[in-house]
Amino acid sequence: LQYGETEGMEPLKEQLVELMAAEGVKAEAEHLQVTTGSQQALDLLGRIFIDPDDVIIMEGPTYVGALTAFRPNGPTIISVPLDDEGMRVDVLASELERMGEAWPKFIYTVPSFQNPAGVTMNESRREELLRLAREYDVLIIEDNPYGLLRFEGEHVRPLAARDPSRVIYLETLSKIISPGIRLGWVFAPSPITERVAVLKQCADLCSSNLSQMFAQVYLARGLWRKNLEVLKVIYRSRRDAMKQALAEHFPEGSSWTDPQGGLFLWVTLPEYLNTEKMLPMAIESKVAFVPGPAFYADRSGTNRMRLNFSYSSEDLIEEGIARLGKVLEKEMRLYHSLGLDCPGEQ
Amino acid sequence: LQYGETEGMEPLKEQLVELMAAEGVKAEAEHLQVTTGSQQALDLLGRIFIDPDDVIIMEGPTYVGALTAFRPNGPTIISVPLDDEGMRVDVLASELERMGEAWPKFIYTVPSFQNPAGVTMNESRREELLRLAREYDVLIIEDNPYGLLRFEGEHVRPLAARDPSRVIYLETLSKIISPGIRLGWVFAPSPITERVAVLKQCADLCSSNLSQMFAQVYLARGLWRKNLEVLKVIYRSRRDAMKQALAEHFPEGSSWTDPQGGLFLWVTLPEYLNTEKMLPMAIESKVAFVPGPAFYADRSGTNRMRLNFSYSSEDLIEEGIARLGKVLEKEMRLYHSLGLDCPGEQ
Repeated sequence: LQYGETEGMEPLKEQLVELMAAEGVKAEAEHLQVTTGSQQALDLLGRIFIDPDDVIIMEGPTYVGALTAFRPNGPTIISVPLDDEGMRVDVLASELERMGEAWPKFIYTVPSFQNPAGVTMNESRREELLRLAREYDVLIIEDNPYGLLRFEGEHVRPLAARDPSRVIYLETLSKIISPGIRLGWVFAPSPITERVAVLKQCADLCSSNLSQMFAQVYLARGLWRKNLEVLKVIYRSRRDAMKQALAEHFPEGSSWTDPQGGLFLWVTLPEYLNTEKMLPMAIESKVAFVPGPAFYADRSGTNRMRLNFSYSSEDLIEEGIARLGKVLEKEMRLYHSLGLDCPGEQ
Repeated sequence: LQYGETEGMEPLKEQLVELMAAEGVKAEAEHLQVTTGSQQALDLLGRIFIDPDDVIIMEGPTYVGALTAFRPNGPTIISVPLDDEGMRVDVLASELERMGEAWPKFIYTVPSFQNPAGVTMNESRREELLRLAREYDVLIIEDNPYGLLRFEGEHVRPLAARDPSRVIYLETLSKIISPGIRLGWVFAPSPITERVAVLKQCADLCSSNLSQMFAQVYLARGLWRKNLEVLKVIYRSRRDAMKQALAEHFPEGSSWTDPQGGLFLWVTLPEYLNTEKMLPMAIESKVAFVPGPAFYADRSGTNRMRLNFSYSSEDLIEEGIARLGKVLEKEMRLYHSLGLDCPGEQ
């Protein structure tokens, strides 16, 4: 339990290489940099790449931890919308063309079971995204914490499995072992991992060796494969419970994504509803969600919310969604009585 | 092993409060912020306090990890020299007066068993430092990783025990439990720990819970007290071995500090010798040290070196210093034969 290598323990990195292979990403241990969770990778990459007023491209909605990591460096954030097939790469193409000289430092994406939307970028969009990255000479940060948590449907290979020269790939042990051990890693071309290592040295010298040893033994014994199968069965059943409860308790005019894996469902309510304003009432009913604006650089998405189906049992999910449905109903009645539900007719 | 509170686990913080009390620092758990080693505290504080061209004050020599943490933020560093009684607060006073309007963001000091010099700031200088901090309205960052490792002499209370309103106090479990668990903490006035917590949330969400649980149990069982006594006996005997070997094997014209605790001895060689240039030869003889310039913002100290007496056995220390002595002798003969050893006579 002395100080360890800043790059991470060699035997752990060899296990991580195997873990990546399970999704089709071929890497060598020497190109991996262990981090104190993926959050540290986002923080270090933000500090390395972003100078004030640099342009970066993110999905809208996007992972809130990436927003908080990148924002302190003062970037201009261009948001590219999502639909059920992931990032709208056609919109990305127009944005890149429109930008002209304003060369973006990187495109940040969570292509599989996105946080918060739960959607997965399809095959052809992945290829098109990489084509655009090559055409405009832009790097991609591919954040893939949930890729292994697929309950159904076909695996879609990560971007880093297709063109590792363009991609800074982030993965984490948070979702398949435990978030409390705080271990993630970066796989990227050497000049980038080397810069990450130098800054990590300033940031915390190395990640907990106790955590690294624990994870290494856990992975080496192959325990993760069994645990992953158990998790997938549990999460799938919870997702199903949530979908069913939503169909039952949420008002007409609401819709939600249909994730084939991961942890999250993304709900869109009628436009006049404001999820930030509703949160205190929900909490009074002892249910919580994350309001939409947290996931947008411009704090839009006021009628959206992220629901996490991984944590609570089916019964609690059913009860929670029913309570949320009541809060929504109350809100809608109030708006209706004030004539605010049909802005067009005001 | 879920995500933990960014501030750190409550039961651990209660143990840390006890640990601080052992040196006379009175704190409440709510004013503590756990960090991924003290290095993270330095990194976060540098990012919070330093804007480009801000002035900060450090000791010369100073801890290399603080230099690497603060430097990327672009400060102007004023170095205040040390002597056997710690920071020359008389020089600090003149610097503060001379600076006038250029208000320094903070004064960074390792007052006890300094890294690299091994010296300890005496009672009266600590009081004078605090007086100056009040007069010029400057914050102090007190980095205290070694305070509990006193082998002999009287305990000198930390600055944070004297005036906690002026001091951002850093401590770590690296020296009394293990550096590999990566746990340190900050004790400071609330507005500062709150800022640290916000930035830590961006940096790594929380420190390893596995490490925190391990440390909490270890501390709660009181095992650290016994371990500390064992460490002190071992380190003291190694320090003695190093002092004796230095007296025997190092050339006339060299001198070294006489630490009453900690891990380090600081050697000053005749001025014409260059420790950076000597390092490859030392490594060829399988001995290593850290050359002086690493510890100075202006990379001076070319004739100095830091020796660590904590890690190797007495026999290895004796052997290592003997080998270093031979490298020195060779260097001196070379300089002598070229007439470079007496620059005044050139």
